[in-house]
Amino acid sequence: MSRIYLDWNATTPLRIEARDAMIAAAEIVGNPSSVHAEGRAAKMALERAREDVARALGAEGADVIFTSGSTEAAALALEGRDFHCSGVEHDAVKAWCRADLGTDAGGIVTVADPARSSLQLANSETGVLQKLPEGLAVSDLTQAFGKVPMAFNWLGITAGFVSAHKLGGPKGVGALVVKRGTDLEARIKGGGQEQGRRAGTENLIGIMGFAAAAKAAQNDLDQGLWDKVAQTRDSLLGALENGAEGVTFLGRESRRLPNTLSMLTPGWRGETQVMQMDLAGFAISAGSACSSGKVRASGVLQAMGIHPEQAGDAIRISFGPSTAERDVMRFADAWLASWQRWRERNRGRETAGKDDHG
Amino acid sequence: MSRIYLDWNATTPLRIEARDAMIAAAEIVGNPSSVHAEGRAAKMALERAREDVARALGAEGADVIFTSGSTEAAALALEGRDFHCSGVEHDAVKAWCRADLGTDAGGIVTVADPARSSLQLANSETGVLQKLPEGLAVSDLTQAFGKVPMAFNWLGITAGFVSAHKLGGPKGVGALVVKRGTDLEARIKGGGQEQGRRAGTENLIGIMGFAAAAKAAQNDLDQGLWDKVAQTRDSLLGALENGAEGVTFLGRESRRLPNTLSMLTPGWRGETQVMQMDLAGFAISAGSACSSGKVRASGVLQAMGIHPEQAGDAIRISFGPSTAERDVMRFADAWLASWQRWRERNRGRETAGKDDHG
Repeated sequence: MSRIYLDWNATTPLRIEARDAMIAAAEIVGNPSSVHAEGRAAKMALERAREDVARALGAEGADVIFTSGSTEAAALALEGRDFHCSGVEHDAVKAWCRADLGTDAGGIVTVADPARSSLQLANSETGVLQKLPEGLAVSDLTQAFGKVPMAFNWLGITAGFVSAHKLGGPKGVGALVVKRGTDLEARIKGGGQEQGRRAGTENLIGIMGFAAAAKAAQNDLDQGLWDKVAQTRDSLLGALENGAEGVTFLGRESRRLPNTLSMLTPGWRGETQVMQMDLAGFAISAGSACSSGKVRASGVLQAMGIHPEQAGDAIRISFGPSTAERDVMRFADAWLASWQRWRERNRGRETAGKDDHG
Repeated sequence: MSRIYLDWNATTPLRIEARDAMIAAAEIVGNPSSVHAEGRAAKMALERAREDVARALGAEGADVIFTSGSTEAAALALEGRDFHCSGVEHDAVKAWCRADLGTDAGGIVTVADPARSSLQLANSETGVLQKLPEGLAVSDLTQAFGKVPMAFNWLGITAGFVSAHKLGGPKGVGALVVKRGTDLEARIKGGGQEQGRRAGTENLIGIMGFAAAAKAAQNDLDQGLWDKVAQTRDSLLGALENGAEGVTFLGRESRRLPNTLSMLTPGWRGETQVMQMDLAGFAISAGSACSSGKVRASGVLQAMGIHPEQAGDAIRISFGPSTAERDVMRFADAWLASWQRWRERNRGRETAGKDDHG
């Protein structure tokens, strides 16, 4: 049986539209900074990609600055500004701000000073969606872009950032979007690229893949493909809930992404579950994928008031429009079988007076 | 007649080996930071690419940190260190150091304090090669890598950086190489990637293209393909020198890259020459390509003692092993015809007592 990939929030399979655009981009010889015909052709392709990304983001008229991904874009937007943020933010955001904003049990953050705060639109682990306050300075749009209808120009924010590989584009390319006229000092200097805000020869192949993926993802959304994703998620939630006792679905009461399920089974380590599911042919995750193999108890769940010990007992299942409902239900069966074995083993140990947390 | 691309130092055509590797990379689904099988496969591909790049660089045992290119790598190596450098360095280097090192008319730089200096191995505009002093802190290896035999481990430097697109890889990917054990604080934070020295999901497709290009470029060098390039360059120089009076070849007396010719024709603007050659079907450049279409008088040539006014009268012709000698000689014919017309026009104006610099 072939493997089933349910870790879309870590990274998505490359869309065929992105792949085709990248193969076409490989034929472009010039450097976009060169003035000759080859350079102008490269520049034109770059600017067309920029327009496509802006349109998909609902950011017409705003500045799209291409970066190597959300992590670099977060640094460009946030370094040296000492903003407020919440513990539910990604580490790439928390690296630059004070995580002192309050978060409730449903994952919803309260922002006191929007003009000096960064707040994500969707959470990568729970899928919880925030209502962004008017006048918010910066928002991490990475997990929301392409999964829920969204327009930068209607969000009332000054800057937002996204990564191509979360919506079917290639890894290692993304963008910072800022309202036109916003001051922004380059962190990578020594060239006039990206209006002097980010020097370095542009990743043209990646950028063209990004643009094609963004366009295709927007099209999927328009055609309602993500409604089906939400139905599949609900079926999965129902199956898991009916089959197992004592599990909790995090952020369940909050508005959230259609594709993400965060489930906590007290006493059963998330990493153990990930390994067992991996052996059974399913890719899921415990926490987010960005700590280089090092599995830590989720800071996101702790910010929602979950005890550090228990925060390590959560798993995340995430998927997309090309994931078949039958594959997701196959996962439910496999997980429930594994859960049964764990519970029986655990019960035996409890009888023997032992505490097992492995 | 199809166009002839002679601007390899700005960027090179993508090698077929890189293209194939990138198409293969597009099939890899996982995030290298994920612990499941898909993630481990991505991680393995990433580390294999890292080994290939290290081997091509002669940097076995050193740390290869993938970046979005030399410009980012330069910032990572140099920011906040207040190093010395020369005016012949690329703007991406000069952005972070004091350009106070002496440079002679042949483009050779004198380094007083190697441990606190950055010095390029090859210059992008003239091709002039430096002899790196023992104990040099940082070297920009971008233009030398893949064009001349070179081994990081034998250069006696602590750190060096390279870009894939200068040797047949994709634009927007590169690396900083540092001796193992060197202290280096991440500039892009919020993830454990690249041993904690550069956060952000890796550009796996670009990196695999880079590795394949580096390997193939090394192979070309081993097989002596660049000796043929030097011969072609010498034929071109001879043809231009015999056909035109009063032209100077910059750095001619110095050891230099086999593929680069920097030629100054006093009184004839480099940008005018670039445009005329572009119309005639040839891509060349005036100065380097990194100022986003904005043509400025070359800082490199000024550092070599050429008057700012004259530094604007230079062009650069650069090519590679896949460039046919016949195409380069076709360029010589076209340029000489253009030069004849310019000289006649100019002579007429001189007779009329006018000074033309256009």
